[in-house]
Amino acid sequence: MTEKINHIGIAVKSLDASIPFYRDGLGMTFEGTEEVAEQKVKVAFLQVGESRIELLEPTAEDSPVAKFLEKNGEGIHHMAYEVADIEAALADLKEKGVRLIDETPRRGAHNSLIAFLHPKATGGVLTEICQCGH
Amino acid sequence: MTEKINHIGIAVKSLDASIPFYRDGLGMTFEGTEEVAEQKVKVAFLQVGESRIELLEPTAEDSPVAKFLEKNGEGIHHMAYEVADIEAALADLKEKGVRLIDETPRRGAHNSLIAFLHPKATGGVLTEICQCGH
Repeated sequence: MTEKINHIGIAVKSLDASIPFYRDGLGMTFEGTEEVAEQKVKVAFLQVGESRIELLEPTAEDSPVAKFLEKNGEGIHHMAYEVADIEAALADLKEKGVRLIDETPRRGAHNSLIAFLHPKATGGVLTEICQCGH
Repeated sequence: MTEKINHIGIAVKSLDASIPFYRDGLGMTFEGTEEVAEQKVKVAFLQVGESRIELLEPTAEDSPVAKFLEKNGEGIHHMAYEVADIEAALADLKEKGVRLIDETPRRGAHNSLIAFLHPKATGGVLTEICQCGH
């Protein structure tokens, strides 16, 4: 079902302070930034192999990422796996008894469809599945 | 420099309890387990695209992963990126002022050479580079 790691979301206080390690230190390809208003975050995309690192900087105090930073400090926020058909994947997970946060997909960055599974189902790792339509 | 995500290490209390979600839920390919005596962990390997999920179960109370679980609970323990030449990569990172835990490589699972960077240098994410020799 899962085709690859689509991206790993890392919560950071500042994109400007965090991009250099991934771009210059580890030599990833910096692809730009995008603001996702619904999630109140600014996202920086860095390509590594078939996957991406997404650095997430909150744009408001009530952003979910701001709350994460307050509780945990900077660190990995979520893992996202690519699936070919997100509706089918959600139905399949539900049938297998995997607890979901999103029962139906919502829109993510880069015009993708995304859904989060419940951390209780995934051993403490906030896990997203996404369908990018390419 | 970094070619791809080699693996993501996830600290778990029990491999038996955690493997089903990744293998049956997300449909990853289960490749087996290996005990890494030096790190006092039992590791389960699950392939997803060009990368792997490595589930880490401590085999002793003084295992670094046991200490992680005590402090943080289950969750992502480290990120590992593949490089072609780990000696060159470490020299390059050092030159760029990136703080390292391992100044010289040590042996990891699957007979790879690995080195950890300091979380202070990486925004709170324990980061490994590895050279797998294939």
